[in-house]
Amino acid sequence: METITIKDIAKLCGVAVSTVSRAINNHPDINEETKSMIMKVIKEKNYIPNNSARNLKRLDSNTIAVLIKGITNPLFSSIIKTFEVEIKKKKYSFILQRVEDKEDELDVAIELAKEKKLKGIVFLGGHFVHSDEKQMQLKVPFVLSTIGSNQQINKTICSSVAVDDFKESYKMVNYLCGLGHRKIAIITASIDDGSIGNLRLNGYLQALKDNGIEVNDKLIRYMKDDIETYSMENGYCVAKELIDSQEDFTAIYAICDTLAIGACKAIFDAGKKVPQDYSVAGFDGLDIAKYYNPSITTIRQPVEDMAQSTINILFDMIRKKTSAQHVLFQGELVVGDSTKLI
Amino acid sequence: METITIKDIAKLCGVAVSTVSRAINNHPDINEETKSMIMKVIKEKNYIPNNSARNLKRLDSNTIAVLIKGITNPLFSSIIKTFEVEIKKKKYSFILQRVEDKEDELDVAIELAKEKKLKGIVFLGGHFVHSDEKQMQLKVPFVLSTIGSNQQINKTICSSVAVDDFKESYKMVNYLCGLGHRKIAIITASIDDGSIGNLRLNGYLQALKDNGIEVNDKLIRYMKDDIETYSMENGYCVAKELIDSQEDFTAIYAICDTLAIGACKAIFDAGKKVPQDYSVAGFDGLDIAKYYNPSITTIRQPVEDMAQSTINILFDMIRKKTSAQHVLFQGELVVGDSTKLI
Repeated sequence: METITIKDIAKLCGVAVSTVSRAINNHPDINEETKSMIMKVIKEKNYIPNNSARNLKRLDSNTIAVLIKGITNPLFSSIIKTFEVEIKKKKYSFILQRVEDKEDELDVAIELAKEKKLKGIVFLGGHFVHSDEKQMQLKVPFVLSTIGSNQQINKTICSSVAVDDFKESYKMVNYLCGLGHRKIAIITASIDDGSIGNLRLNGYLQALKDNGIEVNDKLIRYMKDDIETYSMENGYCVAKELIDSQEDFTAIYAICDTLAIGACKAIFDAGKKVPQDYSVAGFDGLDIAKYYNPSITTIRQPVEDMAQSTINILFDMIRKKTSAQHVLFQGELVVGDSTKLI
Repeated sequence: METITIKDIAKLCGVAVSTVSRAINNHPDINEETKSMIMKVIKEKNYIPNNSARNLKRLDSNTIAVLIKGITNPLFSSIIKTFEVEIKKKKYSFILQRVEDKEDELDVAIELAKEKKLKGIVFLGGHFVHSDEKQMQLKVPFVLSTIGSNQQINKTICSSVAVDDFKESYKMVNYLCGLGHRKIAIITASIDDGSIGNLRLNGYLQALKDNGIEVNDKLIRYMKDDIETYSMENGYCVAKELIDSQEDFTAIYAICDTLAIGACKAIFDAGKKVPQDYSVAGFDGLDIAKYYNPSITTIRQPVEDMAQSTINILFDMIRKKTSAQHVLFQGELVVGDSTKLI
């Protein structure tokens, strides 16, 4: 169908374009009768105001999809916002598709790419363990964003943007050792986790080793499977168990800030203080780490830069047909009030 | 095109179906040569594994869209999860579309409904101020979820699910008055806010009035426009100004928990204590309100129930063609450690 313009509507109604616009925008300064007459014509002619038309175009034309695992992760909020801004700058549109933990993100991506004629895809969060063959079924460029770089990923097929989870985790635990802590507990992902949980655990183990500290398996604690992963509640329950176990420790390192906050609360509820009785450290650099009481010592991921880099790489692959790129960002150790010398 | 099944692939390759499945799922227990041969055929035939086919169907067939304003709002995370579960139960699929603060959600909805042949829409968050005529351009049933019921909404056109923001806000301020507070500051939305900010402010004013407390305009503080609204940072800055103003007050009521947490931090940074020096109360009942130190006195919104009711109402409208329904849920006053008697 050929598009009807606001001018056509104005002509049909025998009023000025500005009047039609006032009617559409529900402007007070317009006669009710005139307005309803205009709206009637608009409905008859199925006229779509310009901004709607823009949206229509926006939804049809060049589209990037972001497949997100773990939408409850506060870390992703600012990443998504940056994605949207950067994608708009490129005059592309943006679909946000939530993928369930148990769902196969690559299957979703392959079909979404076909159905929406996507130009590119960003995978945000979760693991990413797929055969090369299967990855090659995805015919559009894609970037793994903040997904722990996994050995099983063929680095020639897809790009990735992340921090070095091993190195940053090492940095934090090494810092705690520097404060004199030798009995450092860790709250990490379940043993079979193939992604960041594993990398951050390995960083912990290496840091202990390099500081001549023997690993105490009783201080390695895993998130509960029956509680939402990476949630404050999970951190609370795991830390409570640790405290109740009477196992001796002076610091808890949780592999994300939400877990660290849950751990702090468990310590308070046990009648103890942070950092006077126990030091607590997290990872990610969420806002709440700064606003918590005490503020949480953490590794800040430069999420805005990482998000920007993700989009730049994706568009290099789309427009300049560049080959896959892999960028590791530096995390920043942010010292809060939750850790102290012993 | 007619669909190729895994059986067809097995036949073409002269192997068992289980072998094809092992190849697809990158099972270790399969000969590499066989695998690549199978993957080659799969690619040639453009075969889509079943679960992908499911996704394809899922993305095509009966679809509900959720248009969300303020994706950074932690309150929405659990709502979205419940939406997805409930929508799946109904054998419908689910699109999550982020709408920018300044964007017109109704324009986006109207086009999305056409393009995706949506069966229904949920608007989550934000304001919703549109003319009846414009709302009538949206031809599919829609429900406003956790959007402050606004006078300008024609209740015969759309359904709504929310708490009574006026009443719940009144409940909280009345509680603070009951603790003996008479100089209660409020951190609320900018004066021109048409939605929950206004309703919660009015609840505050009415509660003061009914408790015979004269309103002190200097204690009514608005979020900064140049900082992300409803953020901890915004609450921090507004509370800091309030404290620095030397205006006398004994309690701060923030219209959401994130603002309340920012306010607490500002109080700590001023060398004061919560609740010993100032009581602080929030609204929403976020997890962090429970895990913060001290835990924040708040109004818990029954988000799971509200999300479930939203979907039930939407499907009543879709399937039983019922007319618009409007459900107000009871909030629960959750007393934390952030408020005390004076």
